[in-house]
Amino acid sequence: MIVALAGGVGGAKLADGLYRTLPAGQLRVVVNTADDLDLFGLRICPDVDTVMYTLAGLANPETGWGIAGDTFEALAMLSRYERDVWFKVGDRDFATHIARTDRLRAGLSLTAVTSELCRALGIQAEILPMADEPIATRLLTGAGSLEFQDYFVRRHHEDLVIGVEFHGIAAARPTSAVQNAVSRAEAIIFCPSNPIVSIGPILAVPGLRDLLIQRAVPKVGVSPIVGGRALRGPADRMLGSLGHEISAYGVAKLYQGILDGFVIDEADARLAGRIESLGMHVLVTPTIMTTTGDRADLAMRVLDFCTQLRQESSSRL
Amino acid sequence: MIVALAGGVGGAKLADGLYRTLPAGQLRVVVNTADDLDLFGLRICPDVDTVMYTLAGLANPETGWGIAGDTFEALAMLSRYERDVWFKVGDRDFATHIARTDRLRAGLSLTAVTSELCRALGIQAEILPMADEPIATRLLTGAGSLEFQDYFVRRHHEDLVIGVEFHGIAAARPTSAVQNAVSRAEAIIFCPSNPIVSIGPILAVPGLRDLLIQRAVPKVGVSPIVGGRALRGPADRMLGSLGHEISAYGVAKLYQGILDGFVIDEADARLAGRIESLGMHVLVTPTIMTTTGDRADLAMRVLDFCTQLRQESSSRL
Repeated sequence: MIVALAGGVGGAKLADGLYRTLPAGQLRVVVNTADDLDLFGLRICPDVDTVMYTLAGLANPETGWGIAGDTFEALAMLSRYERDVWFKVGDRDFATHIARTDRLRAGLSLTAVTSELCRALGIQAEILPMADEPIATRLLTGAGSLEFQDYFVRRHHEDLVIGVEFHGIAAARPTSAVQNAVSRAEAIIFCPSNPIVSIGPILAVPGLRDLLIQRAVPKVGVSPIVGGRALRGPADRMLGSLGHEISAYGVAKLYQGILDGFVIDEADARLAGRIESLGMHVLVTPTIMTTTGDRADLAMRVLDFCTQLRQESSSRL
Repeated sequence: MIVALAGGVGGAKLADGLYRTLPAGQLRVVVNTADDLDLFGLRICPDVDTVMYTLAGLANPETGWGIAGDTFEALAMLSRYERDVWFKVGDRDFATHIARTDRLRAGLSLTAVTSELCRALGIQAEILPMADEPIATRLLTGAGSLEFQDYFVRRHHEDLVIGVEFHGIAAARPTSAVQNAVSRAEAIIFCPSNPIVSIGPILAVPGLRDLLIQRAVPKVGVSPIVGGRALRGPADRMLGSLGHEISAYGVAKLYQGILDGFVIDEADARLAGRIESLGMHVLVTPTIMTTTGDRADLAMRVLDFCTQLRQESSSRL
């Protein structure tokens, strides 16, 4: 059984590759919830939904969010009701938020609700919110402290980020589902998601980083930065403004002490030596996932890398 | 200023006729809320919505409920999430329930929320929920006690109704908006809605019946029963199974002591004498509203009837 840590689009792509590569039931994806929000009184979990829609084969490949072919009648009507509709929610997507909110209000945990939704969509993997407690990323920017989706969607992640806070994280704990997944995983994979605001909050859940460090199984990350640029989103600018190197090395350094392997793109082959100096094995391989086939190909290579690390580790014993 | 009491479709049609006939701002419609329900965690007010959509020109004339041209993507997705979708909610209709529920949870009264929605839809009339407290009609039937929409929608109002209860009504009070409307009305019109489960709950709000009785202005009802049959819905069977005469007379008798005028269809002209014996003036006129023009025509005749009753009343003084 493999555990993947993921945020939104990039993470969902590799999670999807793993899902299509591993036997049914052998994948558990721990997903960032720090960019969740309440909108129109509904609880929206953008990263959980992106992973869920992607694994269910429903995701919209053009936008990276929402459901392919979704319509926007409810949103248009909410606009008519003078509600601010800056965050685009499609009609089918609304159903997810309605069902989730209804079940949360009935007292179920986010983990339990997510499990219900995934089962209904026929997903044969476990999608595990990183925590059941509400956590909210706030970004300190030149324009002041911004809620994550305000920064990301409404303001098109254009503000310079000089600080990041995960509100509520101190009160959060790894769920028993996440603890169970991590403790039983044969390998742990950090998907190519934003290391600051996607993987970062997962590692910031008190106790979770230690749980990961303690596991003596291959732990491998895939760089979301290729050739010094984020494939999607603001990870590159965010690394820079927070004082990190804008490169695969900069990402690897954030995971130093946790990961024992790091996957970088061929475009970044020259960084292999520096990343190895952080105490990580390095796999240099094509990492850009354009087609669905690319996802499974990369997943296969990442899994092979894990097998290789496991064998090297055994041979050392 | 005219006050109309209304339930769903039939009531909304006459309310719409009055709206199109009276000067802007001169109509207030007090609407039944006893068939409101919570579905998927959202508060749905079927009668309020039918009146609101009708006055906004959005109503679906084919179904009698919902919004013309609405789509059902969210509902289909909720079905995929294994939610029971017996109650049909369109995507634009969902926006109404989402906006309403959000504002109710924020602490606004149903009256205030309804006012916001109506203003956003450009409705230049006041649509007033009969009460802000949640009230729920339960029907005693051969199949046991049924919630209203369970009886009406899911079971296609086929059960024999042997009793009616309005749960929560004892704790309800006429809202200040309803009190103000009734006390300032120059005439009060009972729309052709079901007298048992549409107008009935309004009259059952403690204190409201007395407020109506005390007003010395023309109070006129329009029969929803024509030729011994309900134009729509189960009013005819319900009258019968509850021991009332299935006729315009049977309806008028339920309003005895409140109304001083009753409008019946030409098909029921023979009932005029009996209804007059209840202490009401009677107007015999075509009452079936097929076209939008019919609504305004009937509204005009009802308003003329009110004027006539006012003049007779003045001449008697």
